[in-house]
Amino acid sequence: MARLITLVENDESAARTIIPAIYAETGRAHLIGVTGSPGSGKSTLVNEMAKTLRASDHKVGIVAVDPSSPFTGGALLGDRVRMQDLSGDNGVFIRSMASRGSLGGLARTTGNVVRLLDAAGYDRILIETVGAGQAEVDIAAAAHTTLVIEAPGMGDEIQTIKAGILEIADILVVNKADRPGADRTVRALKAMLQMGAGGRNGQRMMHHGQEMGLMGVGDNGPESQGFPHGSWRVPVKVTVATEGKGIGDLVASVSSHLTRLRATGEWQARELARSRQEVGQLLREEFISRLTMSVPTDTREQVIASVAARKLDPYAAVDRLFAEAT
Amino acid sequence: MARLITLVENDESAARTIIPAIYAETGRAHLIGVTGSPGSGKSTLVNEMAKTLRASDHKVGIVAVDPSSPFTGGALLGDRVRMQDLSGDNGVFIRSMASRGSLGGLARTTGNVVRLLDAAGYDRILIETVGAGQAEVDIAAAAHTTLVIEAPGMGDEIQTIKAGILEIADILVVNKADRPGADRTVRALKAMLQMGAGGRNGQRMMHHGQEMGLMGVGDNGPESQGFPHGSWRVPVKVTVATEGKGIGDLVASVSSHLTRLRATGEWQARELARSRQEVGQLLREEFISRLTMSVPTDTREQVIASVAARKLDPYAAVDRLFAEAT
Repeated sequence: MARLITLVENDESAARTIIPAIYAETGRAHLIGVTGSPGSGKSTLVNEMAKTLRASDHKVGIVAVDPSSPFTGGALLGDRVRMQDLSGDNGVFIRSMASRGSLGGLARTTGNVVRLLDAAGYDRILIETVGAGQAEVDIAAAAHTTLVIEAPGMGDEIQTIKAGILEIADILVVNKADRPGADRTVRALKAMLQMGAGGRNGQRMMHHGQEMGLMGVGDNGPESQGFPHGSWRVPVKVTVATEGKGIGDLVASVSSHLTRLRATGEWQARELARSRQEVGQLLREEFISRLTMSVPTDTREQVIASVAARKLDPYAAVDRLFAEAT
Repeated sequence: MARLITLVENDESAARTIIPAIYAETGRAHLIGVTGSPGSGKSTLVNEMAKTLRASDHKVGIVAVDPSSPFTGGALLGDRVRMQDLSGDNGVFIRSMASRGSLGGLARTTGNVVRLLDAAGYDRILIETVGAGQAEVDIAAAAHTTLVIEAPGMGDEIQTIKAGILEIADILVVNKADRPGADRTVRALKAMLQMGAGGRNGQRMMHHGQEMGLMGVGDNGPESQGFPHGSWRVPVKVTVATEGKGIGDLVASVSSHLTRLRATGEWQARELARSRQEVGQLLREEFISRLTMSVPTDTREQVIASVAARKLDPYAAVDRLFAEAT
C-alpha cells in the first residue's frame, strides 16, 4: 500500500494507470475532513477518533496534509508521533502528505491517496489539513463530513479570519476545552452559527461548486446539492483530546451525520459535486498539456512577452494561442 | 472612473471591450500589495501611506479586496471610514472590492480595476487584502512590491500559520508597535527571515509560477524570475499607523524596493510572471467556455454522474469529453 501511494504521489502517469484500475472499488469509505489551525490539537484529536473507530472494528485511514512552508517540517514530525501511538495496528494506515509543490496538485494527489485506501477497504478515512489556505480548506471540504477544530483563547480577531472556514463545517469542535475561555469560544461559535443559520450548511457545496465547477461560475449543474433547509444543524462539540474526553460523543455525531447523508440523498449529491470538481480540474490540466504540445514554446513565450510589454492585451493573447493550437 | 470600474467588475463582456482599449496605457504604476490579518491595522496603515505618497505628488489608487464571508461586511465599513479620511482629494481614488462569488474571478477583476487606475495615471496603487486565503495572498503577491503586516501579541501558533504568507513579503511591517510584545514580534520575524534566508525572496515568483503558470507545474519559462541571490534583504519595519509613526521610513523602503526592481530587471521579470499567470487563467476560462458550448449539458452531466457512480474513472471521463468537443 505504501509503495502504491508513493507511486501515485510522485508519478502522474502511474496514477493514470493505477486509479482507473481500482476506481470501481472506491466510493464505500466515509471520508471525514478535519481542519483547524496549528495549536488546535487537531492531530491528537484525529488519533483519538481513530482509536474509537477501531474499537467499533472500522478500518481507519489517516491522511495528514501539511503543505509545509520551508520553515516547518510539521508533517514528518506529526507522523513520527503518530506512529508511536497507533503502531502495530494493521487496521490503521497513516500517511502524511507534505508537498512543497503545487497546492492544486496536492488536492488531486490527496484524492488519489484517499481512493487507494478506500479501495483497500479502509471504511473510515480521516483527512487532516491545516486550515490556513484555500487549497487545504478545499481538501477538507471535499470530504463527506467536515469537522472544523477550534481551541479556546483565540481572540475575536482570529474568529473573523476563520469565518470562511466555519462555512464548510458540518460539525464544529472546541478542543482543549479544559483551557480557560472554552465556554466563551463555544458561545462565540454558536453565535456565528446563529448569524449564518438556515442556508449556510445547505449552500456549502454550491459555494465550492461555483468556484471549481466543471463549467465555471454560475453553472452548478443539478441543484440537489446541500441538505434541504434545516435538516442538519451544525453541532458544537467539546473535547479534551489529550484525555480522550468527548471523543465518543464526537464520533457518534460524525456517525449521525453519515446516517443523515445517506437518508437524505446528500451522500450522492456530494459524490456528484466531488466528481464534477475533479473532472473539471483534470480537464483543465489535460487542455494545458495538449496546448503545450501543439503550440511551440517560442510562440508561447513570445505571446506572453508581448502581453508584458503591453503590445498585446491578454484577451487578444488568448485568441492567438487558441488559433495556434487548432 | 467609478462607472468604468463597476462595468469591468460586473460584466465580463464589458471587460473584454474596455481592457483591450486601455491596455497599452498600462504598466506604469508601481503596484504595492499590502496583506495582513484583520486586527493588524492594515487599513489605517494604507491610508497613512497614501497621505505620505500624496505629499510627494503621487496620484494614489487604493484597491481594498475583502472577499467577505456572510458574517462580515468589512469592506463597506472600511470604505466609509476611508472616505472621511481622504475625501476631497482628487489625487486619491479608493475602491473596495467585496465579492461573495468566485475567488479566482476576484483576482482577475482586481487586476482589471488596477489596470484602469494605472491607465488613468494613478502611479502608486495600493492593493490591500486580508491575508486569510490563498486567493488573497496571490492577489497581493501579484504586485511589484508586497508588504506583509503583523501586529504584536499574536502568539507563536499564529506565526506558524503565517509562514506561508511571510514567503511572499518584500517588506515586513510590525504595526501597532506601541503595544506590548512588539519587540518580541520583530525578533520572531527576523528569526524566521534568517531561517529562510537566501533563496526565499528570490524564489517567490517561482513558487507562484509553479502553481499558476500557463503551462502548469514545472514549466516556469525563463528562469530570470526573482532577484539574484542576496540582492534584496527583506527589512522589518516598525510603525504606529494611528500616530503616523514610521510611515515615512516605510514609504522610503517601498521606494528603495522600486529602485531595486528597476535596476535589476526584476520589474520586467515580475511583469512577465504576471502576464503568464493572467494569460494562463484566461486560457483555462476560455477553454471551459468553448467546451460548454460544444458539449451538450446532458452529455456533460451524464459523464459526471457516471464518475460519481464509479462506472467511469475520472481520466476516462476527460478523454470522453475531449472526444465530444472535437
